[in-house]
Order: sequence, then C-alpha cells, then structure tokens
Amino acid sequence: MVIAELIDTVWATRKSEQLNGLKFMLAEIKGGTNEGERLVVCDVIGAGIGDRVLVTTGSSARRMLEDDLIPVDAAVIGIIDESCESV
Amino acid sequence: MVIAELIDTVWATRKSEQLNGLKFMLAEIKGGTNEGERLVVCDVIGAGIGDRVLVTTGSSARRMLEDDLIPVDAAVIGIIDESCESV
Amino acid sequence: MVIAELIDTVWATRKSEQLNGLKFMLAEIKGGTNEGERLVVCDVIGAGIGDRVLVTTGSSARRMLEDDLIPVDAAVIGIIDESCESV
Amino acid sequence: MVIAELIDTVWATRKSEQLNGLKFMLAEIKGGTNEGERLVVCDVIGAGIGDRVLVTTGSSARRMLEDDLIPVDAAVIGIIDESCESV
Amino acid sequence: MVIAELIDTVWATRKSEQLNGLKFMLAEIKGGTNEGERLVVCDVIGAGIGDRVLVTTGSSARRMLEDDLIPVDAAVIGIIDESCESV
Repeated sequence: MVIAELIDTVWATRKSEQLNGLKFMLAEIKGGTNEGERLVVCDVIGAGIGDRVLVTTGSSARRMLEDDLIPVDAAVIGIIDESCESV
Repeated sequence: MVIAELIDTVWATRKSEQLNGLKFMLAEIKGGTNEGERLVVCDVIGAGIGDRVLVTTGSSARRMLEDDLIPVDAAVIGIIDESCESV
Repeated sequence: MVIAELIDTVWATRKSEQLNGLKFMLAEIKGGTNEGERLVVCDVIGAGIGDRVLVTTGSSARRMLEDDLIPVDAAVIGIIDESCESV
Repeated sequence: MVIAELIDTVWATRKSEQLNGLKFMLAEIKGGTNEGERLVVCDVIGAGIGDRVLVTTGSSARRMLEDDLIPVDAAVIGIIDESCESV
Repeated sequence: MVIAELIDTVWATRKSEQLNGLKFMLAEIKGGTNEGERLVVCDVIGAGIGDRVLVTTGSSARRMLEDDLIPVDAAVIGIIDESCESV
C-alpha cells in the first residue's frame, strides 16, 4: 500500500456504467522517494480532502469494493490516524 | 487510476485477432511527478484526442472491456469534466 | 520481492472491516536505485521496527494472508538474517 | 500498453520447459519520460528487430499467449503502422 | 520480463512456511534506464551468482513455481546464453 493525501474530488460525467455511484479522488503520495506521484483512488469509507489515507492498488482494489467486475485499480482502505506523526 | 491526456490515435494493422475493432490511443500522464509518462490505452466510451481521461491499468482494464480474454492492460474508464480544474 | 526496512507502525482506526486485526507497518526499500521508496506492508509473521524484511507485492500479498478477499497489496514474507550483509 | 522498439533477440538455452518454442526479444520503450526503459517481451505475431510494437504487461501477457500457465509478463500484441508518426 | 544479474543469495530463517525449500537471490537489473534497480527473485532452475537471468514478475512468478498459493512475485524463468552480447 502507499500513503497518500487526498487533494481533490474528480468528476467524470461520461464514464463506464459500472462506476455509477462511486466517488473518485485525486491523491498524492507522501513520504519517500516517490513523494509527489499522483493517482486517482476510489473511496467507499468516507474519506475527505486533506485526509492521509492508505491506498491499495491493482486487483486488491476490486477486493475493497467487494465486486470483482468493477474496473478500478486503486482504492482507499483506511484513514491514517492523526497521531501517526512519522508517516 | 491515473489522469492522462489523449494525444493521438495508434494504428496497428498487424495485431492479435482478439483486438479487432478496438480503438487504441496514445496517452500522456498529467500532474504529479510522473507527468509526461506515456502509455497506450484502449477506449470503448468514445473519448477523443485532447480529452483528459481516467485510465485504469492491469487486470482491471479487462474488466472495463467486460471480456477477461482480451490482452490489454490499460483502458479509459471515464472522461474528466472540463470543470475539474485542479486535476 | 523487495528488501525493505520496517521504520514505523501505521495506525488507521477508520478502515475496512476486512482489515481488523491486521498489523500495518511503514517500510523503506533498501539497496539499488529504488532505495528510499516507501510502502506500507502487512505483517503476519511477527516482524518489528528495524527488521530488514522480504516484501511481496500485488496479488501475491493476498496469498501470504491465505485469504484472497483481503484488500492488501504488500506483505512481509520473511525476515532477512542479520548475517546477510550484502543485502 | 507501452510502445517499444525491438532491438535484439534474447537466447536462453536453460529455461523453464513451459517456454519452449517461444521467441523472446529485447525491447526499449519509446517516447515520454519512461523512454529508454528496457524489458524482454514474448512475440507470437512475427515481429522483428527494428519494429515498433505495442506491448502488454502483467497477467494480460498470458491472455496474448492464450495459455494462463505460461510464466511470461510481457508480450507483443501488435506492430505499429509505419505511417503512425507521432508515436 | 527484465534482465538481471544475480549478485547474492538471500537468507531468511524466519519466513512463511509456504516458502520452505525455495531459494531466494538478490538480482540487479541490467541495461536501459532502470539499470541498477534491485529485486529479490525465486529460482527453481539452478541459476547461480553472476548469471544473467530472465525474471518474470507479478502473478506469472507463481506460474513458474506451478503453485498459485506461494506468495512470491518474481522468479527466474531462464538463464541468458553467454553468447547474447547486447543484452
């Protein structure tokens, strides 16, 4: 997984029907040499802009949505506690 | 997912029969430290050159085509709204 | 796999129910040109901060947890012996 | 997918029996910030040195070989037309 | 696949039971802009330190071991012939 900060919501009116109802957010990786890399993640646990989140990628993102047919490759699996300072 | 801009159509007359009828486009990643990385994506939702799109990669691309036997690893899943300025 | 050093524990109180009871740790890749890249890994073999570990990524991480439904994409599969000096 | 130029044939006399009869070629990514990255690809459509090809990676490479048991992670899926100038 | 040189053996006494009996080696990618990147690979064809090998990654590594439950993500699939000079 990677640690990323959610920096914006992504809107796509024209999209696959399989994605209806899903929330997409722009995330930026924090820490380490890949800091600043951006990806778009799917969120189903109620994360918001400014949150530092744990993001899973690849086929595991579909496991997070509990539907193996949805074509997403990155999803928020947890919101990192504010008390976690080093991450 | 990554955000990319579609910059050209890719033509390959000699190709796998499984790919007949599919449209391939050259895309360039926008934003973040991986900006400028290029990949070729499959599009089935009618995106065009100049559009900023949401691209899914890996096995999820086959989910977008709803056919697990097609050998593609990147597909457009949505066209980002023009009003989305920060992405 | 990659070799990484565990540098901290990651706490996420709000997370997917599927992750309850799992331990997440921040890891930093050691050696080679990707040194310093960070990822968050799941550990089920009792590794601790300061350990150099072997990390598997992607769908194989779910094999390590022996549960294909858990949405993780990186897991510790072994702790590298201290006598292994070059790695 | 990525666009790559085939630059050499790769010979491996000692290899997995599952790979017998398959042709492996060294490819170099063209265009974008990942230009110059090299990978070895499997070819079953008759591509040759100097061709610019479309390469699929990951589990989709096994779909190209139509055999999910062959341990390859990159395969040529098409030869890009010479008239495609910008790619 | 990538071409890598095997540079050391990796020992991990504390590891997943599923890995018992497997040999792990430290490998360094050769050639192209990703030269010098390191990964740990599983070898079942008898490769040794100093060999240049073909490495498959991701779910295909499990195909090389012919056991989809083993949590590895990189495996040697062939030893490159010494006469292959450009790779």
